[in-house]
This record gives sequence, C-alpha cells and structure tokens, in this order.
Amino acid sequence: MEKLKKYVSVKDEDHFYHQGAVELLIFNFLLILTILTIWLFKNHRFRFLHETGGAMLYGLLMGLIIRYVTKSPDVESGIVYECEKLKSGPSTLLINITNQVYEYQYKREISHHNVNGHQGNAMLQKMTFDPSIFFNILLPPIIFHAGYSLKKRHFFRNLGSILTYAFLGTAISCIVIGLIMYGFVKAMVHLGQLKQWEFHFTDCLFFGSLMSATDPVTVLAIFHELNVDTGLYTLLFGESVLNDAVAIVLTHSISIYSPKENPNAFDAAAFFQSVGNFLGIFAGSFAMGSSYAVVTALISFMHLTKFTKLCEFPMLETGLFFLLSWSAFLSAEAAGLTGIVAVLFCGVTQAHYTYNNLSPDSKMRTKQLFEFMNFLAENVIFCYMGLALFTFQNHIFNPLFIFGALVAVFVARASNIYPLSFLLNLGRKQKIPRNFQHMMMFSGLRGAIAFALAIRDTDSQPKQMMFTTALLIVFFTVWVFGGGTTPMLTWLQIRLVLVGVDPDEDLKAKEARQSASNLDKNTTKAESAWLFRIWYGFDHKYLKPLLTHTGPPLTSTLPEWCNPVARLLTSPTAYGDQLKDGDTDYIINNDELTENYEQSAHIPVPAQDSTGSIQATGKEDIQEGDLGLGGYKLQLQHTACQPQNSLA
Amino acid sequence: MEKLKKYVSVKDEDHFYHQGAVELLIFNFLLILTILTIWLFKNHRFRFLHETGGAMLYGLLMGLIIRYVTKSPDVESGIVYECEKLKSGPSTLLINITNQVYEYQYKREISHHNVNGHQGNAMLQKMTFDPSIFFNILLPPIIFHAGYSLKKRHFFRNLGSILTYAFLGTAISCIVIGLIMYGFVKAMVHLGQLKQWEFHFTDCLFFGSLMSATDPVTVLAIFHELNVDTGLYTLLFGESVLNDAVAIVLTHSISIYSPKENPNAFDAAAFFQSVGNFLGIFAGSFAMGSSYAVVTALISFMHLTKFTKLCEFPMLETGLFFLLSWSAFLSAEAAGLTGIVAVLFCGVTQAHYTYNNLSPDSKMRTKQLFEFMNFLAENVIFCYMGLALFTFQNHIFNPLFIFGALVAVFVARASNIYPLSFLLNLGRKQKIPRNFQHMMMFSGLRGAIAFALAIRDTDSQPKQMMFTTALLIVFFTVWVFGGGTTPMLTWLQIRLVLVGVDPDEDLKAKEARQSASNLDKNTTKAESAWLFRIWYGFDHKYLKPLLTHTGPPLTSTLPEWCNPVARLLTSPTAYGDQLKDGDTDYIINNDELTENYEQSAHIPVPAQDSTGSIQATGKEDIQEGDLGLGGYKLQLQHTACQPQNSLA
Repeated sequence: MEKLKKYVSVKDEDHFYHQGAVELLIFNFLLILTILTIWLFKNHRFRFLHETGGAMLYGLLMGLIIRYVTKSPDVESGIVYECEKLKSGPSTLLINITNQVYEYQYKREISHHNVNGHQGNAMLQKMTFDPSIFFNILLPPIIFHAGYSLKKRHFFRNLGSILTYAFLGTAISCIVIGLIMYGFVKAMVHLGQLKQWEFHFTDCLFFGSLMSATDPVTVLAIFHELNVDTGLYTLLFGESVLNDAVAIVLTHSISIYSPKENPNAFDAAAFFQSVGNFLGIFAGSFAMGSSYAVVTALISFMHLTKFTKLCEFPMLETGLFFLLSWSAFLSAEAAGLTGIVAVLFCGVTQAHYTYNNLSPDSKMRTKQLFEFMNFLAENVIFCYMGLALFTFQNHIFNPLFIFGALVAVFVARASNIYPLSFLLNLGRKQKIPRNFQHMMMFSGLRGAIAFALAIRDTDSQPKQMMFTTALLIVFFTVWVFGGGTTPMLTWLQIRLVLVGVDPDEDLKAKEARQSASNLDKNTTKAESAWLFRIWYGFDHKYLKPLLTHTGPPLTSTLPEWCNPVARLLTSPTAYGDQLKDGDTDYIINNDELTENYEQSAHIPVPAQDSTGSIQATGKEDIQEGDLGLGGYKLQLQHTACQPQNSLA
Repeated sequence: MEKLKKYVSVKDEDHFYHQGAVELLIFNFLLILTILTIWLFKNHRFRFLHETGGAMLYGLLMGLIIRYVTKSPDVESGIVYECEKLKSGPSTLLINITNQVYEYQYKREISHHNVNGHQGNAMLQKMTFDPSIFFNILLPPIIFHAGYSLKKRHFFRNLGSILTYAFLGTAISCIVIGLIMYGFVKAMVHLGQLKQWEFHFTDCLFFGSLMSATDPVTVLAIFHELNVDTGLYTLLFGESVLNDAVAIVLTHSISIYSPKENPNAFDAAAFFQSVGNFLGIFAGSFAMGSSYAVVTALISFMHLTKFTKLCEFPMLETGLFFLLSWSAFLSAEAAGLTGIVAVLFCGVTQAHYTYNNLSPDSKMRTKQLFEFMNFLAENVIFCYMGLALFTFQNHIFNPLFIFGALVAVFVARASNIYPLSFLLNLGRKQKIPRNFQHMMMFSGLRGAIAFALAIRDTDSQPKQMMFTTALLIVFFTVWVFGGGTTPMLTWLQIRLVLVGVDPDEDLKAKEARQSASNLDKNTTKAESAWLFRIWYGFDHKYLKPLLTHTGPPLTSTLPEWCNPVARLLTSPTAYGDQLKDGDTDYIINNDELTENYEQSAHIPVPAQDSTGSIQATGKEDIQEGDLGLGGYKLQLQHTACQPQNSLA
C-alpha cells in the first residue's frame, strides 16, 4: 500500500511537471513547419499559399493524425456521475475518492446531447483550447497590431468610405445572411432535416453577424508584396479592421436580444434595446480604449518634457506601453464591454499620439514586438482552425446548411460592396472604379474573428452546426480566394504602383516609393471629405499639441481667455518644435494643408520630410521650396530623445 | 423555470467572457505602478530599491488589500463531497447537478489537513497561479535570456572558476544547509514543536538544494549601472546562471531519492541512483538544449548560404528562432528531463553559433524580444511573490525554522565562496581578491528559482513550512542585501571601471569603454586555463566553421582524408569570410590568439573590430597595426544580409 501510494504520487508529479508540454510542442512543431514552408514558397515567389493557409493545412493534417492514429480512449470520460447534495455548480469541487481528497475546477456546462462527444481520446481533449484563450490572449495582439499599423497616409482621407463599408456594410451583410439562412432553415425543416424549434430567426441573424467579420489577411499580404494600389489597400484594410469591431459587438448584441414572447416574432422593445446595447457597448469600448491611449500619451509626453530621463530606459517605456494597451482590453472586459473594440481603438490612438512621444528605440521596439506577437498569434489561430476540424468533438455537418451559407456569404458581400460603392461614388471626387469593387467583393475572406465568435458558444445543436459551417467557409475562402488573389489582380487589370503600403519594407524600395508618391499627390488631392476636415482641424489644433510635441502651441489655437490654461498645458518645446509634425504627411498632403489653413498665417506648415524611412540622424531634409515658405525661418531644436526623422 | 434558466445562462456567459480579466488587470496595475516607481527612482539615481524589490513590495501591499478588504467567503468551498462510485480521480469529471451536467477538470490532490485552507475568499483563490505556469511560461524566458546574454568576453575565460562555484559550490551549499536545518529540526523536535516523523533528513536536503539557487538580479543590475569590475560581474553572473540549473536538477534528484527502508538511514544504492539521476538528467537536458540550438544554427546557416532569401524576412527568422528555442524547453519536459536546464544551454549555444548567422535585423529583434520577455516575466514573478505572502492559503510560520534557515543560508554561502576561492586562487594566475570574495558572499540573494522550486510542492506540512521560510528569505535578501549593494561596494573599495558589462547601453558610453578595454587587455591576458584552450581550439577549428560563417574553412582544419566531407560542409563564403569572426573578441584577445596559433600560419587572426556597437555600415575599422599582420591581405566580402559590423 505504501509502495503503491508512492508510485501514484510519483506518477502524479510527473504528470504535473510535464503538463501541457507535449501539446505545446505539437503546436510549436506545426508553426516551425509552417515557417519553413512559407520561407520556401516566398523564396520561389510562389504566392498561392499564404502562411495562414499553410498553418491551416498543417493543422488539418495534424488533426487527422491525432484523430485516427493515436486512439487511446479514456475510459472514465463519458460517464456522468450523480450528485444529490449539490444544488448548483460551485467553482471548485473537493471530492473524496477512496480516502483521498481531489480538487476539481469548474470548466463548463454541458448539454445532455453532447455528453457522448466526450468519449474521444485524451489527446484530442488536451489539444482543445478553452475558447476564452482566443479572446483574451490570441486576438488582442492581432487587433492591436491592426490598429497600431493603421497610421496610413490614405486612411484618414478615406475615413468616410471606410466607416460606411464597416458600419452600414456589416449591418447589410448580417441581415442578408440572416434572411437567406432563414430561408434555407425553412427549407430544411420542410425536408425534415431540422425541427423548427431548433432554429429561430435570431439564430440566423447571429450566424449572419459572425459571418460578417471579414479577414482578408491573405489578400492584404499579397497586396503588400505586389505593391497594389494604395487606395484599394487602404479601403480593404480599413474596412476589415473596423468591420471586425462592428461584427463582434453586433454578435454580442444579437446574442443578448431576448424577445419576451415568441422568439420568431418581432419585438420592437427588445429590438431597440439591442440597438441601444450595440451603440452603448461600441461607444463605451471606444471610450475605454482611447482613454487608455490618451493616458499613455500623457505619461510618455510628461516623460519627455519634465523628466527627460525615461527615454534612456526604452525597456520601461516599452513595458509601460504594452501594459497600458493590454489594460485597455482587460478593463473593457472587466467592465462588461468588448475588449477587442477597446484594444483596436487603443491601437489607433496610440499610433496617432503616443507613438510621436516615444524614443526612437521604443518606436522600433513596440512596432517589432506587436508585429511579432501578431505573426505568432495569427499562425496559432489558423493552425488551430485546421486542428479543430478533427479535434472538435461535436461537429454537425449539414450539406444544405453549408451550401446555403456559402451562397449567403457571397450574396451578402455583393449587396454590401456594390450598392454602397455606388452611393459612395455619388459623393466621392475620386470614384471607386469597377475593378476595385470587384476586387473588394472577391476579398471577402473569413478568418480568425468569425472562427473565434463561432467557437465561443457551441453548447446547443444550432450553434454547433454554425460552428462547423463557419469553419468550412473559412477553409474555402482562405484557400480558394486567398490562392486566387494574384490571378484575380491580373484579370481585373489592377495597376501595381510604386507607392509604399507598409512601413516595414526595406529602405531603398521605400525611399523610391516615397518620392514616387510625392509626384502622385495631385491625383489624390481633392478627396478629403468634410468629416475629415473637421476632425483634422480639431485634432491638429487641440489634441496633438496637448498630447504630443507636434502641432502648433495651444496658446495660439485656443481663444484668448484660455491662455493661462493653454500655457500650462503646452510643452515648453512645442514652440520650437512646430515644424516637427512628422506625422502630418501621413494624413494630409502639404498643399492641401496650405489650402485649409491659408487664412491663419500664424500656424506654420509642417515640413515635408520623408517620414517612414530610417535615416542617419543629423540630416534634416526639409524641402522648403515647394511649400512656398520662403519667409518662414526654420528653427529646429534637437532634443536627445526625439530626432527629427521618426522611425515610422 | 425557463426564465430562470435563461438568467443562469446569461450569467454563466458573462462569467465566461470576463474570466480572468480582473485578475490580470490587477497584475497589470501592479506592474505599471512598479515601472512608474522605478522610473522615478532611476531618475533620481536612487539605487536602494531595484524594480524586482519594488514589484515585490507592491505585490505585498496588494495581497494585504485583497486579503483583508475584499472579504467575500465562497460558501461552497471547504466542503468535501463523497463519491463512492469512483476508484481513482479521472482527468475530467461530468457531474449531474439538478438535471444539468457540468464538466469539472482535475486540478490536484489535497492533503486532508489542507482542506480547511480552502475556505478563503474567491478572489484569493483566483489570484493564485498554477505553479506549472511558473515553470512553463515565466521561467523559460528569464533563463533563456540569461543564457543568450552570457556571450561575454570574460565568461569563457573564467569558465573553470564559474563551473567550480556552480557545481561544487552548489553541492556544498546544499549539504551545509541540509545539515544545519537537520540540527534545527532536531532542536524543534526536542522543544516539542515538531513530530520527528514529519521531517526527514532528505527533506532537509531538499530544502538545502532549493535554497542553493542564488538570484543576484538586483546586485547585477546595480553592477551594470555603476560599471563594476568586469571580472567580478562575470564571476557572479556566470555562477548565478549555472547554479540555477544545478539547483533545479539537484532538487529533482533529491525529491525522487527514495531509500528502501528507514528514510533517515543512509542507503548507498539509492544515493548512487540519485547521483546517477542527477548526472543523467543534467547531461540529457544539456544535450537536448544544445542540439536544438545546433539545428537552429544549421537552418539559419543554410538560409544564408544556399537560399539567401530568408534574411529578407526577419519575421520568419525571429519566429523560427523563438519557436525552436521554446521547443528545446518543451521537448526536455516531455522527455522527462529538466526544461530549464535545456533552455539555458540552448540560449548559450544560440548566442555562440546561431547569433552569427542571423541577419542584423533579426539579431536586434531576438535580443530585444527576449530582453522584454525577461523584464516582464521577472517582474511578474517578484510581484507574485509579494502577493503570495497573503494569498497563499497554507502558510506555516515557525520562527525557529526561519531563524535556522537564515543562519544556514549564510553559513552555506560562506563555506561555498571562501574555501572554493582559496582553492581556485591556487590555480588562477589572476587571483580573486579578498574584497571580490566578500562581495560574492554578500551577493547570495535568493529569488525566482528558489520560490518556484518551493511552490511546486506544497502538499505536506514540511513542504509548506519550507515554502513560507523560502519566501521570507527571498524578501529579506532582496530588500536588505539588494538595498545594501551600493554601500557595500563603497565599503569594500571595489573599483568602478569603464569596461562594458552589457551590450545594451547607449552607444557613446560603450564606444568609450571599448577603447578603454583595449588598453586593458594586457592585465587579463594570461588567465586562459587549459580547459578553455582545448575547448576554444575545438570550437574554433571545427564547430564554428560547421555552424556559422566564421572561423577558418573546414578544409584547412580537418585532416587530409576528410577533405571530401569538409568541402561539402564548408559554406562557399567561409573562405572569403575568414576575417569576419566578429564574435571572437568576446572570447579571447587578439594577442592571446596569436600566441596560441602562432605555429599554424594558415589560420588567419580575426580582425579586432569594435563589436558591440552599432555603426554606420561601410566603415570597416580593422586595426591591422597591432596584430602584426602586415602581410595578410584583407579581403572583405559584403553579403547583403551580413554586414561586417554586427549589431551585438
């Protein structure tokens, strides 16, 4: 007995030490394989398979192996024990088994029809993540990175169009998918494949909202590689980023929509409550995310001005930046809002304000850190998607539903892009051409967000069917459309221009592109919409001077009577640093700026330096000539921490 | 009933969405506070509190608040349920409670006397990590970073001394602490505080081994900041890094030492089995770690030579590097070895070989990534240590045991440092002076490893007492000795020289130091021991050419008959790149090298470039003059990916 106990305890200890090592090792192995494959493909300029597609493929193969090769059924699972003493499920359960107390932790509630699914082997169960890991660990870096790298010259100029596609387009897509799926569900009921009570119209709308989150990561990677037209890139990237946020909040609002009586009947009160929920959660998350970013900007701003020492510790700066950004996510979650939305807007705001206050070293560190986290998280998710096809225990494959979903997804994408583009073209000075519209239609890939939303709730049978369908649609769109991007670009005759679409390329190519884009500016000049102009004015006059070192001093932009406050809030270096608004040419071209601010002569025009390239410090390439600034005296102050040329 | 169920399900969902957000937010908040405090301290050059000490302090305060302010007892915990049907504890338990099936996951076995400890509040329970998180997530980056940044000029020269301190010293320390504690335990039994059967001699040795892991992170940070003598820095850093590995394997070996009969009697067979275990696990882990690093080196080597494209994708390179290094840890764990030891030697080998093959961008990325991960993980651990004093449920404070442990720790450190230094000084040409010995004695701080080893097993009462005592000793040593480092340095009159101890400082100071250290080389010249010379010769002749681009071509170092193989294994660029052994001056000074290889005229002497500084490329400062290499023709080939001046 003594011996046996010792043996058991050693065995337990071993289990304890190596807990999770094998499963993590499998993931590592898959990711290493993916990287090696992709490197080989990139080497041969083979663009039919993006790294995410490769990760998915390897995940699929590994899932197949685990499922059918390592068959070691766990005898204990699948048996349900009765417990009469308990009235509800406590978070921790202490159970006395043969005179030994074991601690069990609450995991989840299981529907009765899923109990049999638990008879799979132990390996499969171990390879199944808790879905909350997706939402709390893997998605935030991806979304933050998208927001952080959104600081694109063309993004704010196309803001109106992007917002239209993201908000109105996603709503249209959700409703269209919901309606079509409701039709198919009716047909399935008619064919006897489904009982009516199983699938309400709200379920269809739920499916519609989660399938409305597009994720054209494959397409964007190819755009980036081939230097596709910047306007198209910006529209697609901006739409996909904001659209994720909208789809997540929409899904959440629909899931808590609970009409009082008949679930199929329309309940106006509940509907408006849902709309209110949507607006409240979206606005709250937006506020939470941007306020964290503003706090970060203020701290880093303070560091640079009052105590100039922090920039000597880029590690502390980077750490603070990382922790505050993550806190934005966590605070939103803790407050019952949507962390993903908070972290997205936190990223956008950080890029717009805080980035300017960081030391050059921290600028690079934060960029590379989030880029790396994004890379890893993205591949882990796509790898896991591949695995999930075989490791998830409760798939429900229904061919009619899957076919219906495929049709619905395309119809919804079409009724999002074409009508909205038509409407937008009425207002836009530079129209969105037909071939761009086709390309946007084609780029309606589904990816990580759709998957994460679907896997979050797989308790009921309708939800399981939705999950299976969503997974297959992700596979289909990533492989077929992702692989077909290059031929499609050729077929649609979309020009490949030499305009930088991403700040992370090698320097020479970028510099070449920078000069090319300067020649290009007249063509895109007249686009800026009224919405943008209002926002830009406010941002440039008040927010930028308050939160960064750039822009005009507050004393000159605020009304006279605010002067005492303004003087307090303006950094002493701002007066001399007026020309250092290195960020501005991302947002607006110089001639445009001169146009807008011609009247107010005391606001200096930002110098057009070649932002976005790492240059040897000391050389300040201010191109005075083409700004018509002959009389303006250039006074450039060098601070130790902030050289003129940002490392964007 | 319907209504109620809906309510419960919404509540569950909410719980599910925000799971862990509040707890993580608390940690984030503590870390942000720590960073802000440390930044303030650094700003005022206040060196009495290191960031780890600060993190611990804030953790302690937060633990106090959680413990005594948020008192919300969880009614269900602390009640043990009987289950007659089960014979052993399955990994997953399905329980039917009031007609609803819940899934519970196995967490751990609990001793009967600990059951009451579970009556704490829910917040406390949630703030308690699974100890395996320390070992699998938080420790590997710290240890890897230590290994990766070990590439120090003086490390390999002091290898013999460092190995002596690490292996022999840790063994001495373990035995001395064990013996002293056994004496105290006997006294406690005499005083009636303890029953004899509770505390065997092996338990005392276990405590001795876990308390032998020193962690002078605070001291080293101050050394770095004040530029303390490089020799002392290297001895301390090297000792502390290797000593962790030894202590971990020692603890593991002692924990599986099971004498057949009386646990207090000496069992020769079991003892030798433990020694065998120690050697086997250590050697196995070492082999596992270094072979992963060799694979990484070969892959990155292949990339550079045959397919020169990978260096264009630093993200893939960094990802591969990260994943393979982590796989070293996971493979060792999965194989029943010690992952920490594997990841340490993986780090050392990566720095020695792979680092040379990386593109400049990846060199910087990997360094910064691991630096950042190290920074975060270290502060999380110290923060958690502070929390643990109040959140851990089963503390056993025994003043006599704590006092005994304090005495034992100092006596053991003294009987490690002074006798071994005396012995080493017999063989060393450059003696370890008295004041260095006192400083090493003083730097015997305990930290993360001791804590992690102690928290891994807290099931029995002796182990709980050990954990409490270890925690208090960590607090005491970090705050008292960490805070006293600066006065101690002054008191011991240890010179502060201008020699770079860390490659991460700002450039100007480093360049100044580089030139200073060149003047300094004659003083440290004659130290290299025979062990080092043999290793260096083998490494330089065979391993470096095989795994990196540096060193002489294999065709010239291998015997004649190996030529076909050698030609196959030598990279085409190696012949031209012979001068590019940028790493060499970390290991040996040039005049020393000339001394060793004077006879073999065909092996070129590496150029003495100012490694460790980021310089504008294009300027190759080869100082030919002082190498006596007048006749050697400098042929420098520029490859796109590997400029002459490494970004170390």
